[in-house]
Amino acid sequence: MICPEEILALDASDPLAAKRNEFCLPEQTIYLDGNSLGPLPKGVKEAVADAVQNQWGQDLISSWNKHGWIDLATQVGEQIAPLVGASRGQVICCDSISINLFKLISSALQLNPERQIVLSQQDNFPTDLYMVQGLTSLLGAERCQLKSVTTEQLVDAIDESVAVLLLTHVNFRDGQRHDMQALTRLAHDKGVLVVWDLAHSAGAMPLSLDQHNVDFAVGCGYKYLNGGPGAPAFLYVAARHQRAIKQPLQGWMGHQTPFQFDPDYQAAEGVQQFLAGTPNILSLVALNAALAVFADVDMQHVRAKSIALAEVFIQQLSQSDCTNEFTICTPLDAPQRGSQIALAHPYAYAITQALIDRGIVADFRAPNLVRFGLTPLYTRYQDIWRTVQVLSEIMQTKRYLDKKYQTRQKVT
Amino acid sequence: MICPEEILALDASDPLAAKRNEFCLPEQTIYLDGNSLGPLPKGVKEAVADAVQNQWGQDLISSWNKHGWIDLATQVGEQIAPLVGASRGQVICCDSISINLFKLISSALQLNPERQIVLSQQDNFPTDLYMVQGLTSLLGAERCQLKSVTTEQLVDAIDESVAVLLLTHVNFRDGQRHDMQALTRLAHDKGVLVVWDLAHSAGAMPLSLDQHNVDFAVGCGYKYLNGGPGAPAFLYVAARHQRAIKQPLQGWMGHQTPFQFDPDYQAAEGVQQFLAGTPNILSLVALNAALAVFADVDMQHVRAKSIALAEVFIQQLSQSDCTNEFTICTPLDAPQRGSQIALAHPYAYAITQALIDRGIVADFRAPNLVRFGLTPLYTRYQDIWRTVQVLSEIMQTKRYLDKKYQTRQKVT
Repeated sequence: MICPEEILALDASDPLAAKRNEFCLPEQTIYLDGNSLGPLPKGVKEAVADAVQNQWGQDLISSWNKHGWIDLATQVGEQIAPLVGASRGQVICCDSISINLFKLISSALQLNPERQIVLSQQDNFPTDLYMVQGLTSLLGAERCQLKSVTTEQLVDAIDESVAVLLLTHVNFRDGQRHDMQALTRLAHDKGVLVVWDLAHSAGAMPLSLDQHNVDFAVGCGYKYLNGGPGAPAFLYVAARHQRAIKQPLQGWMGHQTPFQFDPDYQAAEGVQQFLAGTPNILSLVALNAALAVFADVDMQHVRAKSIALAEVFIQQLSQSDCTNEFTICTPLDAPQRGSQIALAHPYAYAITQALIDRGIVADFRAPNLVRFGLTPLYTRYQDIWRTVQVLSEIMQTKRYLDKKYQTRQKVT
Repeated sequence: MICPEEILALDASDPLAAKRNEFCLPEQTIYLDGNSLGPLPKGVKEAVADAVQNQWGQDLISSWNKHGWIDLATQVGEQIAPLVGASRGQVICCDSISINLFKLISSALQLNPERQIVLSQQDNFPTDLYMVQGLTSLLGAERCQLKSVTTEQLVDAIDESVAVLLLTHVNFRDGQRHDMQALTRLAHDKGVLVVWDLAHSAGAMPLSLDQHNVDFAVGCGYKYLNGGPGAPAFLYVAARHQRAIKQPLQGWMGHQTPFQFDPDYQAAEGVQQFLAGTPNILSLVALNAALAVFADVDMQHVRAKSIALAEVFIQQLSQSDCTNEFTICTPLDAPQRGSQIALAHPYAYAITQALIDRGIVADFRAPNLVRFGLTPLYTRYQDIWRTVQVLSEIMQTKRYLDKKYQTRQKVT
């Protein structure tokens, strides 16, 4: 396959081109699943080995002070803060998105005690919905009630009955992106607090939590931030709310003075109170090192390249023989799109497997989507071009009908 | 310092002596803080490097299936199970002790809906108390109320008003050990469910959760199990309760079929429903490898050596010049003791610092304890002998009065 000159020219003039060298990427593979698990940044290998062998292995318990383990959750949070448009003291890295949502939604409900509805979308990422359902099972529907609506119903459903609006900024299936500023403003106009899930946007595009007056947010460490499998998540609590709330998962690390071992809980000041148990140091070290990749990155460049990668994909697909076989679920209008392309097809699972077999790692999302993550730090225009070529070939030869591509694995 | 023959003889005949070679231990250091952070087992280094470089780095997202990441929380749980006396399907490794306590206490309250008191000890590890206080702040005192009593009041306080008895098996300060079987039986006689915190016992002594009819338990991955700083915790839910309860921190990994992305939560069967967010793979890999150390260990040997190490310590201390300067807070009667020695002294902090300065890593616990963790897998009798020699010398020379030993660090 000879890549056209104009595609190679795009790579040649890409201001992010050199970033690719900072990642370990397997040979002969085009990795378009960084929105599920980001690849290994080269610096992480040494950082983790040092944490294991020297910090843990040699300095042992003294590392909590000597190597700053005790401040790592805060430090990693502060590294993430500029990527989401947050000034200091509002972001901390801990636990999982699920656990953090529980902390934030129960906190948000405290600020809106006369209301009990948590409004979300039916096709939000399920864990977001599940955590609200869990809170309802604990508190009863008179204190917490999930109302999930379709995307079309969303704007009208934001009314004075709603306590909290819980939305994922970029949809995990189709990659549709909400207008965070407009929806936050609309919510506030109705006295509704917002919790944004940034799983598919942090690290993929510039964000402006402070500027958009967002109340709360959570995000993922292992997708666009490349922190490693199951890396800790992060959360954002706007400074203006921090004194008024008390999150319920109050472990010792959220105490004002954990090492006084006081039998009564006194929440730490600021976002620190959102810590619960002992932070997982090895994972924080990995994420900390992974974030170094972003130190000199202009997020406007990342967004511009993400849009351009998508345009190349869509344009080439529309010119290929297989264009009519798929429904492009991702909005064609760039501002409405996150950083992925989702194609619907009844054989989506098998097509994904056939792509992987050809060295193109996309992923399947039930029931019928092939999902291509666009990660501008290490994905080249030529990778996108090749991907559509191979996809087109797979469709033409109907190779995806091969039995071997039908077998479902545990994790799809 | 020439160690007496009889001490060296104890090391020579120690059935666990060879285990020491399986750990990385810094030169010129006697590490008696394995009850705070266990040292690095040699096998962990390679396991983590492999997970980072080959699994994450090369196989990327396919590792969830290929390297069994998706089953790791269960697999590590099943490795811990025999160490706590649990048959299969009851232990899983996830989150922190704090978060797991929230899951279990709210579950236990469901089984005892007419009662609301969670009974604990005033000097339980604070996070255990804090998590109950957090649950109260969420549910109100009419559904969850912490009652904490002194150790002396405990037995009488276990009555028909109590819903849940929450105890740490071995106290983090003085090392006092509860009679798990007797207290569990007493609790059950009064219709009370028990949650045992095994932070200071799992990996330090044989345990019999099934045999003692325990309802729920949590435990720590980074102390006696040597899983690394902030390693994930574990939890135990007796099989007989698993169908009747629904834990509220219901993330997608606790769903019956997470990869169907169903908008409604359906709890997985069994202990799997106690998972919440995406498991932290690097930490699970480390703990998994660390547990291999226990594969050929007889926990009766561990307990016997722990008792013998303590006897050497106490006997030698009682013969030293400094014996009257300390109060030995740890019970002298072995069955009442965990696997540590705690000495009270007004200058406990400075004494600990002076010990560390001499290469003996003990730790300080506010307000006035020097704490010596006894970890039979890598601690020798000669280490204990030397420790008491150095301690005695520090006390004699009053070296601990040196100003440099007074400065408090963030983590003490």
